[in-house]
Amino acid sequence: MTRAESLKQKANNQADFLIFNQTNIKYFCGFSGANALFIPHQGENMLYVSGVNYEQAKIEAKNADVVLIKRGENLFGKMAKQSSSKKFAVDTVPIERWHDLAKAVGGEEKLRSVKNEIRDLRKIKDETEIQLICQACKLADIGIQKASETVRPGTKEKEIAAEAEYAMRKAGSDGTAFDTIVASGFCCAYPHGTFQEKIIENCDFVVVDLGARYRFYNSDITRTFVAGTATDKQKKIFETVKIAQQKAFESIKPGVAAKKVDHIARQVIKEAGFCDFFVHNLGHGIGLEVHEPPILSPDSKDILDTGNVLTVEPGIYLPGFGGVRIEDTVVVTKDGAEKLTAAPYFPVE
Amino acid sequence: MTRAESLKQKANNQADFLIFNQTNIKYFCGFSGANALFIPHQGENMLYVSGVNYEQAKIEAKNADVVLIKRGENLFGKMAKQSSSKKFAVDTVPIERWHDLAKAVGGEEKLRSVKNEIRDLRKIKDETEIQLICQACKLADIGIQKASETVRPGTKEKEIAAEAEYAMRKAGSDGTAFDTIVASGFCCAYPHGTFQEKIIENCDFVVVDLGARYRFYNSDITRTFVAGTATDKQKKIFETVKIAQQKAFESIKPGVAAKKVDHIARQVIKEAGFCDFFVHNLGHGIGLEVHEPPILSPDSKDILDTGNVLTVEPGIYLPGFGGVRIEDTVVVTKDGAEKLTAAPYFPVE
Repeated sequence: MTRAESLKQKANNQADFLIFNQTNIKYFCGFSGANALFIPHQGENMLYVSGVNYEQAKIEAKNADVVLIKRGENLFGKMAKQSSSKKFAVDTVPIERWHDLAKAVGGEEKLRSVKNEIRDLRKIKDETEIQLICQACKLADIGIQKASETVRPGTKEKEIAAEAEYAMRKAGSDGTAFDTIVASGFCCAYPHGTFQEKIIENCDFVVVDLGARYRFYNSDITRTFVAGTATDKQKKIFETVKIAQQKAFESIKPGVAAKKVDHIARQVIKEAGFCDFFVHNLGHGIGLEVHEPPILSPDSKDILDTGNVLTVEPGIYLPGFGGVRIEDTVVVTKDGAEKLTAAPYFPVE
Repeated sequence: MTRAESLKQKANNQADFLIFNQTNIKYFCGFSGANALFIPHQGENMLYVSGVNYEQAKIEAKNADVVLIKRGENLFGKMAKQSSSKKFAVDTVPIERWHDLAKAVGGEEKLRSVKNEIRDLRKIKDETEIQLICQACKLADIGIQKASETVRPGTKEKEIAAEAEYAMRKAGSDGTAFDTIVASGFCCAYPHGTFQEKIIENCDFVVVDLGARYRFYNSDITRTFVAGTATDKQKKIFETVKIAQQKAFESIKPGVAAKKVDHIARQVIKEAGFCDFFVHNLGHGIGLEVHEPPILSPDSKDILDTGNVLTVEPGIYLPGFGGVRIEDTVVVTKDGAEKLTAAPYFPVE
């Protein structure tokens, strides 16, 4: 069954689907340079592509006929004309174009959102997707390994990012999954602290959070180092985060509520006295996008299922002092979970 | 005058502004990890930030008071409560949240879009912005220089990207502006042809399109090489694109219609007999985003003005044969234009 067929089965609404989100189009057709994808209730899928990417789409796009959109042509009108349906399911469209779309299909009442059904579909990764993410995770491990060799007092945060990204590229990465974070000293009290020209100082915590992209799929890993000998306080924070991460990981299996996994990590951190300093969610789904469902958070409604791929990344952030985050990308298996990132945790000593 | 004050002056609508787009928030406050920015008609700007980025925002955000959004708090409600206005100007909000926002402010009729006013404001770069883009362009030149030294038969496209990006990083780049394009042989007939594992063959055209990011600002440059001795046909295509690019560049000055600049390049290509093979717009504005107004295209309504920064990038793409693109990032000056990227054109011989 193609992914488009799975969508029709899941949505079960006799509608024609109008897909505009680039990542969704990539998911269904393996090509990201299109303007829109039309998945009719019955018949062939149509991929609408403007001149700039038309020749490439003809070669690379799968599961759809490729249609050229000429300069000045009305895309919405062309799609609506193609349809014999009276109902349309849309993934997303900017607010300022919503009325044009409604007009093209003959009224707003004919439109409904199919965003959630596509989210639910994309949440469960198939074997091919898991293999690609696994490859992206192996590349991220290489980046972290390189970072671990580079972290030392006197090095610029930026240099560590340069070396880690270069190592991933040389090993086959198609690019970074997101802007590499290298944050040292007081800056790692910010979960998204980004390097500028800061030089690592003796005994700084150094948080390195990076990911690789491989054939459109992403990975995400964080390790925390100490540039020198750790203090007792640093060791305590590090060990707390490590235990929180491991316990949360061990609780993951199909059928478990995502918020329960978040709670387990949060409880470890609370009991160690750092309750107020774990300032973000425990994790997020990852795949074609770096952040996608399911979400591991205190208010998540997700229930985990086989084939979910997600990050587990507790942290403790002490303003003015620094912080620790430990993160792996994991896949939910039939009876538990498996870590796809496998770099050592480089214990602080 | 701050940028927020310029916006109020431009919009001249006595409204309070609700800003949700990350790039717009960055433009007004120099910080990108916020949930929303409130710019009241009168009084202090408020930047709404959730726990994960709150401590960092307090240090890094400018021109706004930083307000913590707690887990579960209603952001729209909180913003509306802050306001004494009866009119709200919104930059963007996803369609599925539009109704929630309308409810929070007391009805859809109180909302209007301020997207275009912000686009118009951001189109004119100030001195600081031009300096940052200029720095990003210098880094891109370094990347292209490195690529020129790496292009040869037997090299993988991917290796060229790796070396160019590493060189930019080492020179101070904060990352790439977009996914580097290295396309060789038949693949450079696709303007967005991306490398996989392809190895460059003797006499291939090789298109390298890359950019650096520096303190949030982007650059964009393309050069085309021949991996060996060029054929007469290759020379003709290359020279045509080079002349088209130069003539278009020379026509840029304040007051000129963007579509006229596009026409000048297109005319050179048409006269050389390649009319159907220039399959995209001539260029686009660049700054905090890689693609932003103004647009150089046959149907553009933009009129160029001092402080616009844009790309000039004609190309010829022959399916099955290959292609050439030559691109610079340029700034519109008081009486003409200046190229900010300055790498040589590496004539094909």
